[in-house]
Amino acid sequence: MNSCDVCPFLNDNPLVIYKTKYWTINLSPDQSYLGRCYVSLNRHNGDLDSVTSEEWKEFPKIIKGLENSLRKAFKATMFNWTCLMNNAYREKAPNPHVHWHFRPRYNHSVTLYGLTFEDPEFGYHYAREKERSFELDSEKLIKIASRIKDNLIID
Amino acid sequence: MNSCDVCPFLNDNPLVIYKTKYWTINLSPDQSYLGRCYVSLNRHNGDLDSVTSEEWKEFPKIIKGLENSLRKAFKATMFNWTCLMNNAYREKAPNPHVHWHFRPRYNHSVTLYGLTFEDPEFGYHYAREKERSFELDSEKLIKIASRIKDNLIID
Repeated sequence: MNSCDVCPFLNDNPLVIYKTKYWTINLSPDQSYLGRCYVSLNRHNGDLDSVTSEEWKEFPKIIKGLENSLRKAFKATMFNWTCLMNNAYREKAPNPHVHWHFRPRYNHSVTLYGLTFEDPEFGYHYAREKERSFELDSEKLIKIASRIKDNLIID
Repeated sequence: MNSCDVCPFLNDNPLVIYKTKYWTINLSPDQSYLGRCYVSLNRHNGDLDSVTSEEWKEFPKIIKGLENSLRKAFKATMFNWTCLMNNAYREKAPNPHVHWHFRPRYNHSVTLYGLTFEDPEFGYHYAREKERSFELDSEKLIKIASRIKDNLIID
């Protein structure tokens, strides 16, 4: 079985924003949508249909906390949530790990740390071709992660 | 406020596969990914962060039931779940309604009712440009919906 692409990022990583008992929020190095994060199950488990009821129970609290944080931090307008896990299936022996992609979407531009973040596709599907074109240096990423953390309330 | 794009499809519609207390499963007219469905909140409500705990509690049961049904019905390999709601934000007074897109993904082709369904992007993000190119006639759609329903167990 292939090694897991998610597990190594869940601990001792400056882009970990917050950990709950069952889930970890990481900032994505790709900030083509300002505040883009991953929300990953702490436990290595590959299918949504085997997420436990205790793990599920915590998940809406993370949705609420993260959406509210992004509204406060950067005035995000709305949010796209996706659980795909396609990449793991490129391997002969797929070894997926449940994680959600969280993309805040904006009906306005945001200027921050000398950069302007835009969402010209607002109202339409996120543009995957923008990825990799907006990977920020680690200093800026850590500032964005801190801002999200400072506004995050998960109860 | 604009009229809702989701509410009209939740009742008296031949593509409704199943209704629970809080959610409705519809087959999508676009079958570019065989078994593509929508899972919509019965109540008109526009943000994931105001889905109630009772509504959330039912949602993993739907995930499990639908994934298992598609494995049995068409041997689907894995699944993509997305909650986007972008379209509603094209309007000046957005009126979104929480719904999930469910796309089964296949590492093999499936021949059914004289058609061959393929997933050449398997292992990669779903291809949005395929949509609209695979809208089936209502007779075939109803057959696919019935097959999913016959294999669906939600408890």
